[in-house]
Order: sequence, then structure tokens, then C-alpha cells
Amino acid sequence: MVYLTRKAEFSAAHFYYVPEWPEEKNRQVFGKCANRNGHGHNYTLEVTVKGEPDPVTGFVVDLKRLKDIMEEEVVRVYDHRNLNHEVPEFAKLVPTTENIAGAIWRRLDGKIPGAALHCVRVYEMPDLSASYYGDK
Amino acid sequence: MVYLTRKAEFSAAHFYYVPEWPEEKNRQVFGKCANRNGHGHNYTLEVTVKGEPDPVTGFVVDLKRLKDIMEEEVVRVYDHRNLNHEVPEFAKLVPTTENIAGAIWRRLDGKIPGAALHCVRVYEMPDLSASYYGDK
Amino acid sequence: MVYLTRKAEFSAAHFYYVPEWPEEKNRQVFGKCANRNGHGHNYTLEVTVKGEPDPVTGFVVDLKRLKDIMEEEVVRVYDHRNLNHEVPEFAKLVPTTENIAGAIWRRLDGKIPGAALHCVRVYEMPDLSASYYGDK
Amino acid sequence: MVYLTRKAEFSAAHFYYVPEWPEEKNRQVFGKCANRNGHGHNYTLEVTVKGEPDPVTGFVVDLKRLKDIMEEEVVRVYDHRNLNHEVPEFAKLVPTTENIAGAIWRRLDGKIPGAALHCVRVYEMPDLSASYYGDK
Amino acid sequence: MVYLTRKAEFSAAHFYYVPEWPEEKNRQVFGKCANRNGHGHNYTLEVTVKGEPDPVTGFVVDLKRLKDIMEEEVVRVYDHRNLNHEVPEFAKLVPTTENIAGAIWRRLDGKIPGAALHCVRVYEMPDLSASYYGDK
Amino acid sequence: MVYLTRKAEFSAAHFYYVPEWPEEKNRQVFGKCANRNGHGHNYTLEVTVKGEPDPVTGFVVDLKRLKDIMEEEVVRVYDHRNLNHEVPEFAKLVPTTENIAGAIWRRLDGKIPGAALHCVRVYEMPDLSASYYGDK
Repeated sequence: MVYLTRKAEFSAAHFYYVPEWPEEKNRQVFGKCANRNGHGHNYTLEVTVKGEPDPVTGFVVDLKRLKDIMEEEVVRVYDHRNLNHEVPEFAKLVPTTENIAGAIWRRLDGKIPGAALHCVRVYEMPDLSASYYGDK
Repeated sequence: MVYLTRKAEFSAAHFYYVPEWPEEKNRQVFGKCANRNGHGHNYTLEVTVKGEPDPVTGFVVDLKRLKDIMEEEVVRVYDHRNLNHEVPEFAKLVPTTENIAGAIWRRLDGKIPGAALHCVRVYEMPDLSASYYGDK
Repeated sequence: MVYLTRKAEFSAAHFYYVPEWPEEKNRQVFGKCANRNGHGHNYTLEVTVKGEPDPVTGFVVDLKRLKDIMEEEVVRVYDHRNLNHEVPEFAKLVPTTENIAGAIWRRLDGKIPGAALHCVRVYEMPDLSASYYGDK
Repeated sequence: MVYLTRKAEFSAAHFYYVPEWPEEKNRQVFGKCANRNGHGHNYTLEVTVKGEPDPVTGFVVDLKRLKDIMEEEVVRVYDHRNLNHEVPEFAKLVPTTENIAGAIWRRLDGKIPGAALHCVRVYEMPDLSASYYGDK
Repeated sequence: MVYLTRKAEFSAAHFYYVPEWPEEKNRQVFGKCANRNGHGHNYTLEVTVKGEPDPVTGFVVDLKRLKDIMEEEVVRVYDHRNLNHEVPEFAKLVPTTENIAGAIWRRLDGKIPGAALHCVRVYEMPDLSASYYGDK
Repeated sequence: MVYLTRKAEFSAAHFYYVPEWPEEKNRQVFGKCANRNGHGHNYTLEVTVKGEPDPVTGFVVDLKRLKDIMEEEVVRVYDHRNLNHEVPEFAKLVPTTENIAGAIWRRLDGKIPGAALHCVRVYEMPDLSASYYGDK
């Protein structure tokens, strides 16, 4: 079994806000992230798949295909977007790094031919990341 | 003469839009950056000052002081903000990397005791930066 | 279960020396690291915690709280220090990267509210790191 | 148990080609990687070993020894080489990142005194890596 | 005047060899780089242009246009190629980092509408780069 | 004229202290850097030389020779040392990043055959560097 990891990047705006809470509680829990004008990040996405390398090609996964899937399923939808206002899964879900990792897993799981999705890691900044391995 | 460079980071949302232009022209010139819901970046700021190292302390500039000035004059104002909506200099100026570098120069110039401002460099992403050296 | 990783940095001096050994054996085993005048590093610390994201906030852990704990329990004690002379756990323990990872685990374990400590990784340099996952 | 990771780098040329296939199929499957004039990369190798730190030295593994083994068994053989033409394991095996990781595992396994090989990770570029953990 | 820098990457094989010299002298001067089977690198290219930001758009240069020019004039020609065998300027010129920087300057100079080419920097590896500023 | 930059690294301990000053003033000016037990850094050194590439070899400077000179004149003397106690130029000079850059310039200037020393840049940490270009 070999694990193959490919990176992609997207730039997006977001904010943290629970509409059921008063402004004051949002500020207290989320600090300056609660600013509804939004702020933003260059997100780095690392997708890891696992499988046996094909004995002829040496590939666990067709790299071009994997890149296209990440582009189509994630980057096209998230890049240069306001996650809260424009990406459906964050209409009600706070777009924390943890929730973004889970949401990308759900976008990719089952879509990669010939290899199993192993991990979705999202860096909001170089010093903060969240990793999700599915329901394990 | 020694040149000393210090980095800082801020995360902000922005978009590119000229209100005098029709939507179509904004889309044509600025592409997906024209999305007024905003997108965002982790900006890296590099400030370079120059001067003779003090013969006793060995410092061109008091590093703690320089950090505080960068924090006070720039990071406090730009970080976790929507540059278009919340930072005054971008009310009418498109917040391109070029214009951000110039704006930060104007915020810092003349504020650093004992050393001359030499360069303001802003990275919007690791592969795109703008540098401004003042009116030279 | 989501894994969240946060980085911090500290700069410290250290050296490798077993007082029960003659100088010659220390030099032979530890090479130039045996120099008791000390040398130093910019250490990078990566702390990984795991848990279920809170259904309302989307947080596995309060990031500000995690940062404060890492600062209070580790950075305040190790940063700008000579690990051998000033940090109690290294009075008798050689401050190798392996031992530093274990020591930081013991400083953090049980202190992070609402999430389990999963991994402590310490980089002495970008090309050398040690990871500890507790008694597993 | 502590996991210790050490990096090394090598620069090599390679290409992807299955001689049993017609040129057209090679181009279709491998794209521009099928160019038999070769292209190249700065590969980064991360070797992770695991073990209990020695209670006296604090080492899981003698770092100098580990470096020498990585140098002798891998870097000396792969660096500044054309992997297809000059490294025996790739005479018949396509030198994909996946296969390089497996090949380096086989070169290192059983050669590191006092510690178990845990993982071989190879980066072909910063955004593409393969990891192999042995027959598990 | 603002300086704008954009990065691109290409992966290529090369070797250092002066055909007029005997094999022995090539080995002596170029070491393992003289291996005519080639080795390779992930090159990083940084192109810096300078100009006044447009008062309306805030751009020194149309970034999409600059990217396309770098792609068309350089990356398309150098990427996944053997520089010695497939790129015309290196038929007789040794493809050192210095010569690659000069060659890319000549490929780009005069092609970038509205801005002046200021610097071409090429990294062969993260710890080795060459910069060319034209005939100055 | 082409500018060639090569990096090297060294790990050293240091502290900031002016013996003519009382302890209190040292603490006030230098903060936690005044701790005479020392702390340390992984320093990165970037040496830039300039010259015309040799028309035959394509080299501004013999890279192997440059590496050996940097190793012999700087790394061998500074690495795994306490700069204050073991490196002669810092017996009386505070080893700030600014002073280290100047000291390395003086160690290298005139020693590099066939090329002129252009710049010595020293990073104490990734976010702090000092550059010296000689008496210009």
C-alpha cells in the first residue's frame, strides 16, 4: 500500500458567526473572526489517497485525473469565493478549518477512480491545519 | 549601511472593482477577483529599513520597536478586515498588491526612529509580490 | 474525529553531554554537539489534538486557548533559554529532539480542555524532527 | 516509542515509459513525462525510524550513522543520475514517485542499527509526495 | 515605480559538458554534473517587472497576461525537457543557472506590454540561484 | 553581469550583553536576549557574488570552490559554537544579526577567486534578516 499526497491551493474569504447568538457572544467566542465583512486566507489543501501501485504504470492513481477532480470538485467551487455566502455547505455550518476539511472529504469521497481517499488536510495558514480521515 | 528586514502577516479579504465601469468590464479586466462577495489571502509583509548599526548595541533599529510599529500602523488596521470596506485608503483605490505596498509605505514612512525606510514588499501569495522603494 | 495541528516556535541553546562519561567519550558519541558552551536552534513545535468538532462552533478546540496553553506551558519556559541549564527536565536528561518531544508531551498532556493530545512533533531544524504520540 | 524523521535531497533525471506499449499509448498515459530525453527533479527524501530513546544518550538512532546510511544507500546511487538508465531497480520499473518510495524502502530496510524503519516519503515536487510504510 | 514579481516552475533535465574538452577535464571541472545521462531539477523562475501602477486598475502589469507570457515563452519550452538536447539556446551554451537566467531574459525582454523587465532570477535548488538584470 | 547566490546554514548560541552596562539596562534594552546562559538559532547565510559568466563554462564562480570557502571561512568557525564565547570578532561586538552580516562580509571579502562579493545576508529566523553590501 502506498499513500500519495497532492496539494492544491485556493484563496477564499470567510467569517465565523452563529446567527442564533447575539453579536456580543459571537465576538467573545470568535474574536476578530466574527467580523461579518469577512477576512481571508490562502488555503492549502492536501489530499492523500492510498492503493497498490499499478504493476505496469507504477501509479496508485492517475495524477492528472486526481488533479482534475480536486480542481473540479473543490477549487472551482471554493477559490475566489466567500465561503459563507457562496458555498452551499457553509450556509449553516461555520467554515472553520475543521469543518472545511470534513466538507472537502464529502466532496471527494468516492470520486477518485482506483484509489481510496485516506486523508484531507487543510491549512488555513502555515501554522494551523486540520486533518480528517473519514468516519474512523 | 546595513539593511534589516522584518516580516509580519495579516489575513484579509478584498476584491477588485472599479465602480465607474459596468459589471461586464470589471469581469473582463479583473476576472474572478471582481467577485464583490470578496475572497482573501494570508498576506506577508516584509519591511526593510537601513542604517548604520549602533556601535554599542549593534542594532540598526530597535527590533521590538519596529515590530510594535508594524503591528500598530499596519497589522492592527488590515488584519481580519475586508480591505475594500474597512480600510480607508482602499475606499477608492483598488487593493491590488501594488497599491497595498504603496499604502503600507505611506503608513510607515517617517515613523521608524533612527532608521530610514528602504522597501515595503507585500506577498499576496507565495508566488506573487510587489515591492515599493518610495519615490525613487 | 478531526485532528487539529498548531505550530509555535522557540529559540534555545543546548548541548549534549553525559556527565558520567569522560570528555573523550562525549566527543566521540555527540560530536560537536558536546561543546558545553552550547549552540542553538530555532525549534518548531507542532501540537496535534483530536476530537469531534463542536456542532455549533465547528471547533475541535478553542484555538486561542490552545495557543495560550502552548505559550504558557512550553514557549514561556523554553524560549530564549539554555535548555540544559535553565529547564528543569533537562538537568539530567540530554535535550535531544526525541527527549524534547517527550518532555513537551508531559507538559501539555491533560491541560487542553475538550480535546485529546494526539502528537507532539519537534523540529530542531527543517530536516530533523521527532514525534511522540504518548505511551502507544 | 518516538518517531524520528531525517531529510535528504537528490537531483535526478527520469521519464515514464513502458517499452511494451506503442509511443502513442505512452504519450496518452504519461503525457509529457513520456519524453525519453528525460526531465528532472530535486527530490526530497524523508526517512522515519521508530524506537525507544536510549535512556543515557536520548537517541532513538545515532543521527550521524543514519545520515551516512541514507547517503551511502540512496543519495550516492540516485543523485545526479538518470534513474531509468543508471539505477538498476528502474531498468524495468517505471520510476514514479510511488515506485521510488518502495525502492528506497527496500534499500534501507534492515540497515539501520537499533531502530525500525517506519516510513519512506519521497517528494518529487513540493506538491506531490508518496509514502510507503512497508508491507502493512 | 513598483516592482512586481511573479513565480513559475519547470522541471527539466540537464548536464554540464564542453564537447571540445576531453572527458577527464569535463569531470574535473563539472564533477558529477558532467554525467551525460543527465540529472534534473525543479527550477523556480522569478520574473520581476517594474512600472507605475495604472491609476484606475492599480496594476503595473496585467497579471493574467504576464502569466501567459511566462508560460508561452519559457515554461512551454523548458518544462519536462532535456535542456541540452531540446532547447535551442543550450545546443552550444552550457545550461548553468547563470546561463539559464540570461537565456530567459532574452526570451522575455520586450514581450511584456506596459512594463519593463527588471530581473530574471532562477533557482536551480532552494539554496542556489542566479539573477540577471540585463546589460547593466 | 550575473548575480549568483548560495545558501549555507549554521546553528549557534548567542546572547546580547554590553558589559559596561548594569544588568538592569541590559534587560531593558535587550529583553530576554540578555540572558547570559545564551539561546540559539538556526542561521541561514546567503552569499551573493557577481561577475560575467565564463564564456566556456557558463560559471560566474566555481560553485564547489564557493561552497568550500563559505564552509572554511564561516561555517567551520560559527557552527555549533557560542558566538559570544568562541568566535573572536564577538568578544567585544554584540552578535546581532546586523553585526554577524558585517563580520561574515569581512571574513569572505577578497577570498572568492574570479568574482566580486556583492551581498551577505543573514537570517536569524525566517522573519528577520540583515543584509550588508560592503562600504557602499
